Amino acid sequence: MNKEITACVIVIGNEILSGRTQDLNVAYIGKRCDELGIRLMQTRIIPDVEATIVATINECRRMFTYIFTTGGIGPTHDDITAASVALAFAKKIERRAEAVEVMDNYYESGKLTEARLKMADVPADSILIDNPVSAAPGFQLENVFVMAGVPIIMQAMFEGIVDRLAGGKAMLMESVATNLGESALALELSRLQDAYTDVSIGSYPYFKKGKVGVNLVIRSIEQSRLTQLKKELQLMIEKLGGKIVD
Amino acid sequence: MNKEITACVIVIGNEILSGRTQDLNVAYIGKRCDELGIRLMQTRIIPDVEATIVATINECRRMFTYIFTTGGIGPTHDDITAASVALAFAKKIERRAEAVEVMDNYYESGKLTEARLKMADVPADSILIDNPVSAAPGFQLENVFVMAGVPIIMQAMFEGIVDRLAGGKAMLMESVATNLGESALALELSRLQDAYTDVSIGSYPYFKKGKVGVNLVIRSIEQSRLTQLKKELQLMIEKLGGKIVD
Repeated sequence: MNKEITACVIVIGNEILSGRTQDLNVAYIGKRCDELGIRLMQTRIIPDVEATIVATINECRRMFTYIFTTGGIGPTHDDITAASVALAFAKKIERRAEAVEVMDNYYESGKLTEARLKMADVPADSILIDNPVSAAPGFQLENVFVMAGVPIIMQAMFEGIVDRLAGGKAMLMESVATNLGESALALELSRLQDAYTDVSIGSYPYFKKGKVGVNLVIRSIEQSRLTQLKKELQLMIEKLGGKIVD
Repeated sequence: MNKEITACVIVIGNEILSGRTQDLNVAYIGKRCDELGIRLMQTRIIPDVEATIVATINECRRMFTYIFTTGGIGPTHDDITAASVALAFAKKIERRAEAVEVMDNYYESGKLTEARLKMADVPADSILIDNPVSAAPGFQLENVFVMAGVPIIMQAMFEGIVDRLAGGKAMLMESVATNLGESALALELSRLQDAYTDVSIGSYPYFKKGKVGVNLVIRSIEQSRLTQLKKELQLMIEKLGGKIVD
């Protein structure tokens, strides 16, 4: 087996920590990492504070194969991610001609203001990340990928960098839901987890529309193992007198 | 001014990192911290891996006044938070009589199985956190509050510990939305931020129902400063030829 390819998401933004904005980017990147065979190991949500951004980037970029940041690359005073990442790598910020050109093509004549041009300021030696939604690019510096916070832009940027990422075998997932509670399942689940050390078995209680039960989620890179374990889980539920729920 | 009271949320669960479950607890705790005058400084989302939980708890509990963890305290094999937190503090896990009693009252006769009793196993010297939804408690060990992952349970637990938290002046918030773009506002916003160093001004572009614009969010512990700045923001938008949007 090759060396495991890992990732960390760093969400940058006071609005996420204050609860004013619900983050949706972690879930998106998490799903895509599974598909790409990259293990998302950790996420950090940090405020728009230069020292915190610099310290977090420098800690995490040494711990994981890839770092994905979201947020803080717009034109306003609170968008300090590009400058902070430059500082973390001890790089200068430079106005990138290629970014100016892309933005010049995107905006109507005369609308490429100085405020907008700030979004063409990226760290020296960084590689741009395309923004097919609203032109202003993200950038990659070594293993750190700096993307927008607005989900539709972040997603478009992420899809644009997939070719740059070394992946592994996709993490596959199956699930079985039952009306049984976690406690009824615990002993048998533990036995199955011991028998299937190459599959991770997650047990997640749900409470919806007045009904309670459990979603069992199994994850592995081998479909055959998932298929086999899923059958065992279904048998287990029947044996315990439960029902399988859609 | 008193020493700042800070917090960190540690979300524990593979299902959040895989994107299978959308975290909602960070936003809830973030809002409540603002109201309680506690500064939520950081969030980490980590997998159900003992070594990672231990390391993260031990790093964070020294950095922040309060640590709130969510997830991993159920009865199944993947619920390893209580044991991991005990390990972080070098405490034994013990079956707490008080927790057994609460659960015994909650469940019908004969339904308090060994699997359920696992949820009465908490670190020595910890203080229980009530669970008015489904009985099985969380716990507090020094400055670390260990809560359930299911949002309705987590919220009930959080409200139960509010009395144990030293708070400060509530962080107040006002917002103004406009149809102007961030770039049109950037220069004036920067000027206002320089004039109001005691208020944080956040600028968040929105894209909804085909309309674009910006939400300006201002935060301060002084309502008078928010009221004053809000007026200035409204004047600024008018001066720039924009509209204020509801």
